[in-house]
Amino acid sequence: MNTPETTSPATTSPETTSPEHVRRVACVGAGVIGGGWVAHFLARGYDVTAWDPAPDAGRKLRRLIDAAWPTLTSLGLAEGASTDRLTVTDTLEQAVADTEFVQESAPEKLDLKRDLLARMDAATPPGVVIASSTSGYPMTDMQTTAANPSRLVVGHPFNPPYLIPLVEVVGGERTDPAAVAWASRFYEVAGKSVITMDDEVPGFIANRLQEALWREALHMVASGEATVRDIDRSITEGPGLRWAVMGPMLTFALAGGEGGMAHMLDHFGPSLKSPWTRLEAPELDKALYDAVVAGCDEAADGRSLADLVAERDQGVVDVLRATGRLDRGEGSR
Amino acid sequence: MNTPETTSPATTSPETTSPEHVRRVACVGAGVIGGGWVAHFLARGYDVTAWDPAPDAGRKLRRLIDAAWPTLTSLGLAEGASTDRLTVTDTLEQAVADTEFVQESAPEKLDLKRDLLARMDAATPPGVVIASSTSGYPMTDMQTTAANPSRLVVGHPFNPPYLIPLVEVVGGERTDPAAVAWASRFYEVAGKSVITMDDEVPGFIANRLQEALWREALHMVASGEATVRDIDRSITEGPGLRWAVMGPMLTFALAGGEGGMAHMLDHFGPSLKSPWTRLEAPELDKALYDAVVAGCDEAADGRSLADLVAERDQGVVDVLRATGRLDRGEGSR
Repeated sequence: MNTPETTSPATTSPETTSPEHVRRVACVGAGVIGGGWVAHFLARGYDVTAWDPAPDAGRKLRRLIDAAWPTLTSLGLAEGASTDRLTVTDTLEQAVADTEFVQESAPEKLDLKRDLLARMDAATPPGVVIASSTSGYPMTDMQTTAANPSRLVVGHPFNPPYLIPLVEVVGGERTDPAAVAWASRFYEVAGKSVITMDDEVPGFIANRLQEALWREALHMVASGEATVRDIDRSITEGPGLRWAVMGPMLTFALAGGEGGMAHMLDHFGPSLKSPWTRLEAPELDKALYDAVVAGCDEAADGRSLADLVAERDQGVVDVLRATGRLDRGEGSR
Repeated sequence: MNTPETTSPATTSPETTSPEHVRRVACVGAGVIGGGWVAHFLARGYDVTAWDPAPDAGRKLRRLIDAAWPTLTSLGLAEGASTDRLTVTDTLEQAVADTEFVQESAPEKLDLKRDLLARMDAATPPGVVIASSTSGYPMTDMQTTAANPSRLVVGHPFNPPYLIPLVEVVGGERTDPAAVAWASRFYEVAGKSVITMDDEVPGFIANRLQEALWREALHMVASGEATVRDIDRSITEGPGLRWAVMGPMLTFALAGGEGGMAHMLDHFGPSLKSPWTRLEAPELDKALYDAVVAGCDEAADGRSLADLVAERDQGVVDVLRATGRLDRGEGSR
């Protein structure tokens, strides 16, 4: 379907459909994540084939899509989008036989992922990119048994994939960089927000960050330091409100006031030695100090402190308003 | 100012003003956090005295308040709220001499906090609660040199204190539980969202969680695994969008689908052994498993999975809309 007048930024073989012209997508595994992908692709107007070995998978998938569809409709469906464009197949091979992209969302077991990716590779047309939703396995470890590992990439989404924009894209040692570029471009066309990683890091970026938070939370529950409810409230009423608007690095830079991240590191650097989490901090040497300060300057991208503060404040106010958190104080004052 | 017909839930002495009747608040330290507290209290209609030893502190404080005031006005000021109700004093003693509550927001240095709290205690009227904005020092370690340690509590805010609702309140070994209760109630009356902790934990709750995330982020920058910009985007485009709506525990429970947190732990429990962060996870034994599952059930508070999914989805959509993230996909589909 690649038309002569279109230049595709990367294709894995001459017969590969360009990211802009993909019409048919296959989802292998249709649980919470795979089903969320199905809902996303349907809402973006794709024809979707889905397969899942669980006996009641089709019923659960329909239920998930029905629950998500009103939300997706309110967000605005792509032209021609319809839940009728879903076909649930009896076999994996049927799901991928005629597809232009495959998203695998099987349970998080390395052996299972390996076997499934090899099976999918064997049944998928040549040149079609196959992406795994794995939460953290490096593709190098998953592509070991596939005949054509070059087209296997990680495309890691966040739950629910039909609402949270981020997809982390990275290849393995045997992945063709063109497949990584193709997948990144395809996800963008499909309405996602993409971070393409140059190197494999277990857990990628966002999952390493949220896994650190999750493990600290589990420690706190295990030791009786906090309840599940306190942990959740501490985020939704606190840092979580900022993180929807501005990331943790720039957020902390603003806490440094006019001195920015440099002042923040001067001020809170010593706290890296404090037992404020079970995670040991890196040595805050000059190289790290400079990298963090320069990175924040770069991320600020010319915006002044006043600009950033105003942006953050307006963003937080919008989030507070959108989530019904205003006027909660009790006093008349 | 305690009137006979009002029952105060907790007072630290007969002459203590009830939380509902406080009119005068003192802020010691007027940098980014202290100044943010000043802006918050002014917007809630209090008379505020502020002191900071920095030579240009008054100028910076006025600038911070001027920048925040339009936002606070759009949120709705309390009756009578005015920036004219701020008095910047020349000495700490003048700031606290006639106050009904004190918020300390000095730099994060233990010796400095200890000395300052002792000085503040000596100059503040008897029975008035003094709270520290410390990011993580236990009050037990800070109250060692004060003559009246019983009225010293931690009231830990998040930047900016005039927008982020959360305050974590906890006392030290020598704090009167009545002072903790008074402070918690006062912050609620003043429009904050309070978590009162029974026990001292360094970093409290939210800061332990965000410090774990922060340290993992610093490690990633130090090792070249991710840039500052990638780290920030990975949160704002990913988990950060959920965390403004639903905390990390309940968010993960929803990823377990109809099996909830129990299924999530069955599925991702083994990942606790994976190197997805530098933080070692606790042993997922039966006690922890049960505590997390029961905690999520309790936090769900009778809401079904479908209810929770609908709530999360609507919340995320509202946040996406409020922060201008809709219609960002490029494709026509």
